[in-house]
Amino acid sequence: MAIQQKLSLMIPGPTPVPEKVLQALSKHPIGHRSKEFQELVASTTKNLQWLHQTQNDVLTITGSGTAAMEAGIINTLSKGDKVICGENGKFGERWVQVAKEFGLEVIKIQSKWGTPLNPEEFKKILEEDKQKEIKAVILTHSETSTGVINDLETISSYILAHKKALSIVDCVTSLGACNVPVDKWQLDIVASGSQKGYMIPPGLSFIAISQKAWEAAEKSNLPKFYLNLKSYRKSLTSNSNPYTPAVNLVFALDESLKMMRAEGLDNIFSRHKKHKLAMSNAMKALDLELFADEKCLSPSITAVKTGEIDAEEFRKTIKNNFDILLAGGQDHMKGKIFRIGHLGYVNDRDIITAVSAISNTLLKLGKITAQQAGEALVVSSRYLEEN
Amino acid sequence: MAIQQKLSLMIPGPTPVPEKVLQALSKHPIGHRSKEFQELVASTTKNLQWLHQTQNDVLTITGSGTAAMEAGIINTLSKGDKVICGENGKFGERWVQVAKEFGLEVIKIQSKWGTPLNPEEFKKILEEDKQKEIKAVILTHSETSTGVINDLETISSYILAHKKALSIVDCVTSLGACNVPVDKWQLDIVASGSQKGYMIPPGLSFIAISQKAWEAAEKSNLPKFYLNLKSYRKSLTSNSNPYTPAVNLVFALDESLKMMRAEGLDNIFSRHKKHKLAMSNAMKALDLELFADEKCLSPSITAVKTGEIDAEEFRKTIKNNFDILLAGGQDHMKGKIFRIGHLGYVNDRDIITAVSAISNTLLKLGKITAQQAGEALVVSSRYLEEN
Repeated sequence: MAIQQKLSLMIPGPTPVPEKVLQALSKHPIGHRSKEFQELVASTTKNLQWLHQTQNDVLTITGSGTAAMEAGIINTLSKGDKVICGENGKFGERWVQVAKEFGLEVIKIQSKWGTPLNPEEFKKILEEDKQKEIKAVILTHSETSTGVINDLETISSYILAHKKALSIVDCVTSLGACNVPVDKWQLDIVASGSQKGYMIPPGLSFIAISQKAWEAAEKSNLPKFYLNLKSYRKSLTSNSNPYTPAVNLVFALDESLKMMRAEGLDNIFSRHKKHKLAMSNAMKALDLELFADEKCLSPSITAVKTGEIDAEEFRKTIKNNFDILLAGGQDHMKGKIFRIGHLGYVNDRDIITAVSAISNTLLKLGKITAQQAGEALVVSSRYLEEN
Repeated sequence: MAIQQKLSLMIPGPTPVPEKVLQALSKHPIGHRSKEFQELVASTTKNLQWLHQTQNDVLTITGSGTAAMEAGIINTLSKGDKVICGENGKFGERWVQVAKEFGLEVIKIQSKWGTPLNPEEFKKILEEDKQKEIKAVILTHSETSTGVINDLETISSYILAHKKALSIVDCVTSLGACNVPVDKWQLDIVASGSQKGYMIPPGLSFIAISQKAWEAAEKSNLPKFYLNLKSYRKSLTSNSNPYTPAVNLVFALDESLKMMRAEGLDNIFSRHKKHKLAMSNAMKALDLELFADEKCLSPSITAVKTGEIDAEEFRKTIKNNFDILLAGGQDHMKGKIFRIGHLGYVNDRDIITAVSAISNTLLKLGKITAQQAGEALVVSSRYLEEN
């Protein structure tokens, strides 16, 4: 039976927040035009560049990841521009909606929910665009709705070969979970959000923006004010913000980025990788089918089919019995899958706990044997140890 | 000499935050699609309507007050629409910029910084608009940059008489400080921000929107996605949000709105009124000239001319000696005025403290006598007691 406020978040955002970060969050605010705040902006900006593995500007916006993606699109493109949108889940669909809202001409490259985008389709369309009419390729790296990671490295190499098109990438659940080397892959716009790998509550989003994207921004004619990134760039030269930022979330960000630097990128990435393997293999040991193609499992989210069991009921039982919040399926997948977030401030204990709670619930439903429950634990533990 | 983290914020935002609200802020986040969060949205929405004295929808957006004002403008208007913009300070200027960015035709009604907008100029232009071409009147209630409050009650009556035009009002430093009866004055769009009268850190903004404004929204053709208010309205029917909101700031909001309800609107307004009178009269007793016309002093900010003293140096001295942060002048007023914020979680002690720090600094500069310093204290105390 649940007791108050001992909830474990195993959803793909908001993710668990370290105590130290919560304490930073609750400090009394300071003036956002003060020297002290400028020092904070300088510090977080430097660490954001480290996290993004880039020398590009990394801007912080008060708003959700959607705001950051919209900003990337409307700052670099103009009405009527032709763009490719990769669409294999709810977030891919959203970027198509944004592009259409702003009058862009969208070429969709689609793949069924749970399967990855095919890089060769990008290659083909980009190669056939001899007139260089395609101005951008918009896609989602880790599709939060399905637990699929798209092959951004390969797709971005095809975008680079095109030379003209910009890459505009939703890295909301990949950044801080797996390798996204912005400079090495020459990504133009990379958007992400605070309540994910960053280990802080929602409210801030981030945009890494390349020199090529800034050049495109000079020609962009789409109207914007709050999300006009040039204002943010100008303010950043004095470590400031064009509009009042979420000061307390910046306190939290500074703390969490320092924790991430202390852990190191390689350790962060391998932690997420082992959690992905432990979780997905445990689910298979429990005779649960993974929703995503196993060749492209996101490091951050494991989506699990529940077959004849109602996934919403299943989630509710786990929440009521064990205070563990899992995410449900979105849109047409509601009731058919649940999604386990293992992103950000997650340790091995969180993984075996979630496996144990899922096993327990399946046992009570008579869906598995004690032997299987034990095997799931053995399998997950093996992956946790190996890596 | 300053010690760490004992800063007193006397700027017009961020404003001081009650300890209870800071504690709410530092709770571990919960899922933004959970029943618990829906209950929180229901509670804050009801209390926001109370604060706005309205039955209209009041939407909460993750973003600054500028985002809320932009949303009000771009959701109700279309390219080429004719609007009146009142401009007598930095924020009035900003709304002109937003209107122009989105291709609106702007009729400016201006007044010198420090003086109020003349309601009769609004009346004249609105009455002369027989073709009803003016679609909206955009203005700032309390001009944070100058400490002037514009006569919104009178101006809104002229807008109502026009029948067609919407009122779109920046109430960022008036809401929660003085009377803004949204239903009584039939205001169409009222925008505000969390780091002001709301007593919580920056990151949330609010928009009260009338039925007439929703009808205008049906015809609006300006592109928007993150700031499309129809998405927020749709989500609000299930006490939810279209995009991940700043969950922890909503915890804080819920707490602060409950504190505000416990104090009561009349008490909140009279507290701000007495602080305005105590502060402005104390400044005069110190031979300092008020920047704003005395007939239209904002309840939230007292702007003070420093004559031959450099206002930035003066602010810095007070910060270094007493850990009190005052705001400087903006744009061309930088160095010429300082601004004292007395908005939100401010008590009588804060007022006499600021008066005392200013007196002390003027004494050391040889600008006033001990007699005057004493008089300033007497004057401020009298206003604090009287009300």
